[in-house]
Amino acid sequence: MDLRALRPYAWAFVLALFVPASWVLVFVFKPGVFVFGAAALAIIPLAWFMGLATEELGKHAGPGVGGLLNATFGNATELIIALFALFRGLDTVVKASLTGSIIGNVLLVLGLSMFAGGVRHKTQTFSREASGIQTTMLLLAVIGLVMPALYVLSTGATTGGVTGGIILVEMSLGIAGILLVAYVLGLLFSLRTHRDIFNPVTEQEEKPAWSVRTSILVLVAATSLVAVESELLVGSVEAAQTSLGLTELFVGVIIVAIVGNAAEHSSAVVMAYRNKMELSVAIATTSTTQIALFVGPVLVFASLLTPPVLTLDFEIFELVSIALSAGVLSAVVADGRSNWYEGVLLVMVYAIIGLAFFFHP
Amino acid sequence: MDLRALRPYAWAFVLALFVPASWVLVFVFKPGVFVFGAAALAIIPLAWFMGLATEELGKHAGPGVGGLLNATFGNATELIIALFALFRGLDTVVKASLTGSIIGNVLLVLGLSMFAGGVRHKTQTFSREASGIQTTMLLLAVIGLVMPALYVLSTGATTGGVTGGIILVEMSLGIAGILLVAYVLGLLFSLRTHRDIFNPVTEQEEKPAWSVRTSILVLVAATSLVAVESELLVGSVEAAQTSLGLTELFVGVIIVAIVGNAAEHSSAVVMAYRNKMELSVAIATTSTTQIALFVGPVLVFASLLTPPVLTLDFEIFELVSIALSAGVLSAVVADGRSNWYEGVLLVMVYAIIGLAFFFHP
Amino acid sequence: MDLRALRPYAWAFVLALFVPASWVLVFVFKPGVFVFGAAALAIIPLAWFMGLATEELGKHAGPGVGGLLNATFGNATELIIALFALFRGLDTVVKASLTGSIIGNVLLVLGLSMFAGGVRHKTQTFSREASGIQTTMLLLAVIGLVMPALYVLSTGATTGGVTGGIILVEMSLGIAGILLVAYVLGLLFSLRTHRDIFNPVTEQEEKPAWSVRTSILVLVAATSLVAVESELLVGSVEAAQTSLGLTELFVGVIIVAIVGNAAEHSSAVVMAYRNKMELSVAIATTSTTQIALFVGPVLVFASLLTPPVLTLDFEIFELVSIALSAGVLSAVVADGRSNWYEGVLLVMVYAIIGLAFFFHP
Repeated sequence: MDLRALRPYAWAFVLALFVPASWVLVFVFKPGVFVFGAAALAIIPLAWFMGLATEELGKHAGPGVGGLLNATFGNATELIIALFALFRGLDTVVKASLTGSIIGNVLLVLGLSMFAGGVRHKTQTFSREASGIQTTMLLLAVIGLVMPALYVLSTGATTGGVTGGIILVEMSLGIAGILLVAYVLGLLFSLRTHRDIFNPVTEQEEKPAWSVRTSILVLVAATSLVAVESELLVGSVEAAQTSLGLTELFVGVIIVAIVGNAAEHSSAVVMAYRNKMELSVAIATTSTTQIALFVGPVLVFASLLTPPVLTLDFEIFELVSIALSAGVLSAVVADGRSNWYEGVLLVMVYAIIGLAFFFHP
Repeated sequence: MDLRALRPYAWAFVLALFVPASWVLVFVFKPGVFVFGAAALAIIPLAWFMGLATEELGKHAGPGVGGLLNATFGNATELIIALFALFRGLDTVVKASLTGSIIGNVLLVLGLSMFAGGVRHKTQTFSREASGIQTTMLLLAVIGLVMPALYVLSTGATTGGVTGGIILVEMSLGIAGILLVAYVLGLLFSLRTHRDIFNPVTEQEEKPAWSVRTSILVLVAATSLVAVESELLVGSVEAAQTSLGLTELFVGVIIVAIVGNAAEHSSAVVMAYRNKMELSVAIATTSTTQIALFVGPVLVFASLLTPPVLTLDFEIFELVSIALSAGVLSAVVADGRSNWYEGVLLVMVYAIIGLAFFFHP
Repeated sequence: MDLRALRPYAWAFVLALFVPASWVLVFVFKPGVFVFGAAALAIIPLAWFMGLATEELGKHAGPGVGGLLNATFGNATELIIALFALFRGLDTVVKASLTGSIIGNVLLVLGLSMFAGGVRHKTQTFSREASGIQTTMLLLAVIGLVMPALYVLSTGATTGGVTGGIILVEMSLGIAGILLVAYVLGLLFSLRTHRDIFNPVTEQEEKPAWSVRTSILVLVAATSLVAVESELLVGSVEAAQTSLGLTELFVGVIIVAIVGNAAEHSSAVVMAYRNKMELSVAIATTSTTQIALFVGPVLVFASLLTPPVLTLDFEIFELVSIALSAGVLSAVVADGRSNWYEGVLLVMVYAIIGLAFFFHP
């Protein structure tokens, strides 16, 4: 193998040094802010390798199965981190990281993409139809989150209480089921019946750079390492937040969410810069709906294995942030055109929400 | 008269057997779940005959007056049921059936239509302009419902209290008046000044099948029978909900609303299946705005005859459901195109809201 | 100077007689409802002269600097009134007048414009792109107001409390800073990089009617007199509201806001009537975003000079009204077309909100 072929991956290999670094740190010190930082940095290149391997596999498999692979593994990092947090009973962090992933994709990723693309290109265009469907999917998820919160609000029920708690669990399971059905039908829609809306022609003809074997090996290795690092990350969340003086909510919404999505973030921005706004918007919006309609519900069902069940009653701050993000998304993609200032506005909305979570007790 | 001409109405005549059946049941048993069921089933064909007779009369009268007839009698069934519930003091059921009609039309009718049409036709189109106006009309109604609820929320006033109650009544009357004015001006807009937006050409040239006399006879007979059955339905609501273990809210929002709208439901779906999406969207959206801007306000003023006055302070669950339905409608009709998956998403939203009302205490 | 040249200004000179009238009244009587009324009427022609002088200066300066001048002085009247209210500690009136200016511009000005224009012209068009950006800017401001309100709601903090109050102040300053940055970048966007979207060609070639000197003289004189009248207006608010039996909230939201915006109101309506809907929408929407992203934040920072700091926790009634106005604006401008009935709907929304504020305790 020609070593020069590895050159574009140099940054990833350098960042990947934090993988062994995090192991040394956790043995030398107790889990704390350093382990947390090292694990966070280590996950970024690993997630990127996972994405790369999935893409390569997809090229071998053809657009249909490739799309399915991307859809399934696209948010594997967030799912893995959230599963480890779930099994440790850190429900607040789980919900916060879901919230953070959704608003991060809608506001930060899309905002930075529109800004980066718009600085170079006066106006960029993308499919209103595809982004409109994604917006409606996100609205569905918002409604699925509003209902349990309203229930809690109007009855004062919590998972602690007896009857109220059981109803909340049943409601959450029912809603999670409905969202999953919507997600699966959405795959049928975007990969089968209306594939043309979602797969712009430009991307179809690339040749795979890796063999199937290499792709699978990289995928397995990267996924395993992500799991290990997630365990370290989650295991040191509490120690880290104490020494940094942050709340669980802030760590989940801002830090964990950015780490889990860093790989998509950068590829969306790069695509926008190369004037492939179509792809950039697709990454940001499908990533959002995957979190809301797939990762979230899967976590609810996974929590059946380790009760208490993860209920869908999000904090009012989280809920309002998600709902407002959906509204802003709807306004921004409505015309199928973007410019740098729309990007600025999205990032500003993210800044305001971030500020609010920072001050939230 | 050739009896074969009656063949398309066969299903309606069969269902209409529930009319006498409900009378027998109410004499034999006390009002209960059986009377409730029979009356509910009996209303469906009667509402359909009312619609048919109105349409035939409209063909004789020409598009202008025909449109006015349709607009006035289009939701006569819901109005009659709600009036009987109102006169029995079942205010919760009245408001719940208004809520249910609105979300049912926006989510269930439109959703099933888009699904049924989309399964056969890849993409269907309709007027963005007409549906956009209807969406804004619905938003107006949402704002009219939000204000009394906010007042109740921020002052803790109820219709029971003295000053707060009087203000709530005055506010409700004022808002109902504004909504009625908006409705009447809307008729002027859609039937007069901008008729071309709302009346697609395709439908204009049909010949009436019934004489004016037959139409009026059928209309009078069907309306009277709807009134009788509504009385039976409403009279057995309480007994029925007790034996089925459901809340007044659920019965009103889901069951009464589906019964009252079944006729429009089916015709909207049939139109969509025949690729007349334009008509299908028009049925669903105008039916929604008629409920919100005409039936609702008329009930408020009608309640002046039998105090206490019906105030517009809806349950927070109802209010949020209506507001979110308006948001989803806005997102779905924004591009003037539909496909089967948009239909699925609307039905899923309905399912989530239905689930929430089912669990609501 | 030819006196006939002054004829178009006749109405303004007549109304300007209320300037000396208000001085006489305040010396003869104590500040009260008459002084309030005279000052209110006096401000209307003064604001109009300010606008005229700014426009003339802008013609000399060329489109770039002219746009900046208009953006800065466009809402100078509201800013001056609000500053005087702020320095008197009437924070409720300040926030209420901001709310009133926003909903007044979105609902009343735009509504009357669409109605006046639509009565004469069946359908009018305007730039969806420009109005879409303005809508998103307004959404940003809505999110900036929602967060402090949510904080107050979920912690029960008020500016009176110790820790909660400090956090509220810090949060308000942070959000005001973000909104100001967004505003300045928005100027860069609309006056520099994407000038073509916002400056329709029609307006470019007008010759200035006044010299630079006259323009500056008129601007200085009118601004000074606005300041004097604002002091009188604000100084008699309390006396006036007592004798009229109105709340501070109602006076701020409806009366002060209409007075402060009367000049723009009338010019937007006139433009619409002349079928320059593009300009009309631009006046209404940019005026809205200037209030939300410039005047509001400037007042927050100005309040640092006279503590307590003006915090951004608006009344829930105000917040909901602004948020719903943003939603309605988004629905109405989405298609870039307007008609008289859309105008009616906007005015009806304003009427409902006005009614609610009237009844609000």
